[in-house]
Amino acid sequence: MSLIVVGTMAFDDIETPFGKSDKIIGGSATYVAYAASNFVQPIYQVSIVGNDFPQAEMDSLKKRGVALEGVEVVPDKKSFFWSGRYHMDMNTRDSLVTDLNVLADFNPIIPESYQNAEFLMLGNLMPKLQKSVIQQMKKRPKLIVLDTMNFWMDTAMDDLKEVLGMVDVLLINDSEARQLSNEFSLVKAAAKIQAMGPRYLIIKKGEHGALLFHENSVFVAPALPLEEVFDPTGAGDTFAGGFIGHIAKTKDVSFENMKTAIIVGSAMASFCVEKFGTQRLTEISKEDIDARLDAFVQLVNFDIDLVG
Amino acid sequence: MSLIVVGTMAFDDIETPFGKSDKIIGGSATYVAYAASNFVQPIYQVSIVGNDFPQAEMDSLKKRGVALEGVEVVPDKKSFFWSGRYHMDMNTRDSLVTDLNVLADFNPIIPESYQNAEFLMLGNLMPKLQKSVIQQMKKRPKLIVLDTMNFWMDTAMDDLKEVLGMVDVLLINDSEARQLSNEFSLVKAAAKIQAMGPRYLIIKKGEHGALLFHENSVFVAPALPLEEVFDPTGAGDTFAGGFIGHIAKTKDVSFENMKTAIIVGSAMASFCVEKFGTQRLTEISKEDIDARLDAFVQLVNFDIDLVG
Repeated sequence: MSLIVVGTMAFDDIETPFGKSDKIIGGSATYVAYAASNFVQPIYQVSIVGNDFPQAEMDSLKKRGVALEGVEVVPDKKSFFWSGRYHMDMNTRDSLVTDLNVLADFNPIIPESYQNAEFLMLGNLMPKLQKSVIQQMKKRPKLIVLDTMNFWMDTAMDDLKEVLGMVDVLLINDSEARQLSNEFSLVKAAAKIQAMGPRYLIIKKGEHGALLFHENSVFVAPALPLEEVFDPTGAGDTFAGGFIGHIAKTKDVSFENMKTAIIVGSAMASFCVEKFGTQRLTEISKEDIDARLDAFVQLVNFDIDLVG
Repeated sequence: MSLIVVGTMAFDDIETPFGKSDKIIGGSATYVAYAASNFVQPIYQVSIVGNDFPQAEMDSLKKRGVALEGVEVVPDKKSFFWSGRYHMDMNTRDSLVTDLNVLADFNPIIPESYQNAEFLMLGNLMPKLQKSVIQQMKKRPKLIVLDTMNFWMDTAMDDLKEVLGMVDVLLINDSEARQLSNEFSLVKAAAKIQAMGPRYLIIKKGEHGALLFHENSVFVAPALPLEEVFDPTGAGDTFAGGFIGHIAKTKDVSFENMKTAIIVGSAMASFCVEKFGTQRLTEISKEDIDARLDAFVQLVNFDIDLVG
């Protein structure tokens, strides 16, 4: 039950219609680790930070069972920094600053101690680095999940297509699925994307939930209707962390179990958006998670036998 | 198990990115009747048409158990006519022509033979006419469902608010819920709208499904992911017809049964969009409907016990 998580560990500065975060901890691998560590430990983290990344944060992750041997610390550079501003609908945002810093030279190395991991979560990152990680694995993991974004479709489509041919599950949002497939219908898009490699496709639709496609089957998970989305940053990574955390815990890669894993991911994401950054994820207990999972059951449960 | 359906019977001329319909049968009450008659008969129709409405269509409705005593035929005028063009996303459309014709003088009269109806579906129509129908009922129906649209919020908000105070269930889409409540969050919108009268609120989100709110409970129903939405015209009315048809059949107005009714409505709407106008609704059998309902069960069903 070992899981490798690859991605960024970074600083974010977030502005929403409800407030401003100042410089806080972010990064795809950070969110994935916070979410997944509720379900599986250890987590074998692979990332890169600069000399400014706080030791307290590293300690906090370690306490949650996150192994940091694969996290490179560059002494003379700064960590990756992103700043962005959300629009009123909280679904769209403008990037204000993107300072790659240490990320510009990132060359992820999988430590020997990580080699027996059964599950691999490739968080959003340059596709060629994601590919390099897969190639370093001496034994192919039982399940490889890839997260990516439109930026790599715009700037590194060839690399992306190559790595797509090497993974089992792809996680993208609806507009990215349309961009990648050149199809407006998500059903048609899903068929085309499965032909590119991943046998499972998860399409995230934010407040409208998520879809799981596999061959001719489809599963729809709702998002929890919330009074307020305070900060959507990291919701997708948190979803990914809940998803792969559940899979790694249960070691069951069936379609049926992936459906449950998507509900777990949705539940974790519903926490993430309640406060700025990773804060809410550091506060919640197992009881909070169980109660939220129960809310999802109530949300979608209906009795079809009532159709007389 | 008797149901009154009030609304328009009309002609539509529809243009989509996939084709043009020419002048075909439309109208809110037409779609509701076609959908609901799969579940409950007779249906007591209340509407108005001109001298151009085809007898063949009247005969087709009669064969499905739709009583037409409450449908006024105006000999020297034409039926209501609407023409519109859908944009590429099939979610937005422009109205090209709206000829009220007979609708301008519509004054719905509930025939004596309809008076014992237990269920009342007020299809999209001028709010003051919807109110007049409620006032004509000697015994209040067990459940009154109201459909409306943004046009009445723009032009007849006072009338709309009055009728909202008289109904049990309101059916609107997400942008209408935001407009009516002046709240962006649908959870906040739902609370405000319930305070206006309807104890149950159904928010339709097209391809993203539908939400049912009641007190502090919420239920989310998915839409069936489709390869192609051929023509969305009437999908909301068809949803309403499936919803009220199931309620009228089962005579059960509990929250639990409303959840099932929303799945039935969603299933019916998923047929409606497959062809122009009401065509697909005239073709489907009980077996088709059962198979589609089963597809909805598969679509949302997951095993939370897999969370170990």
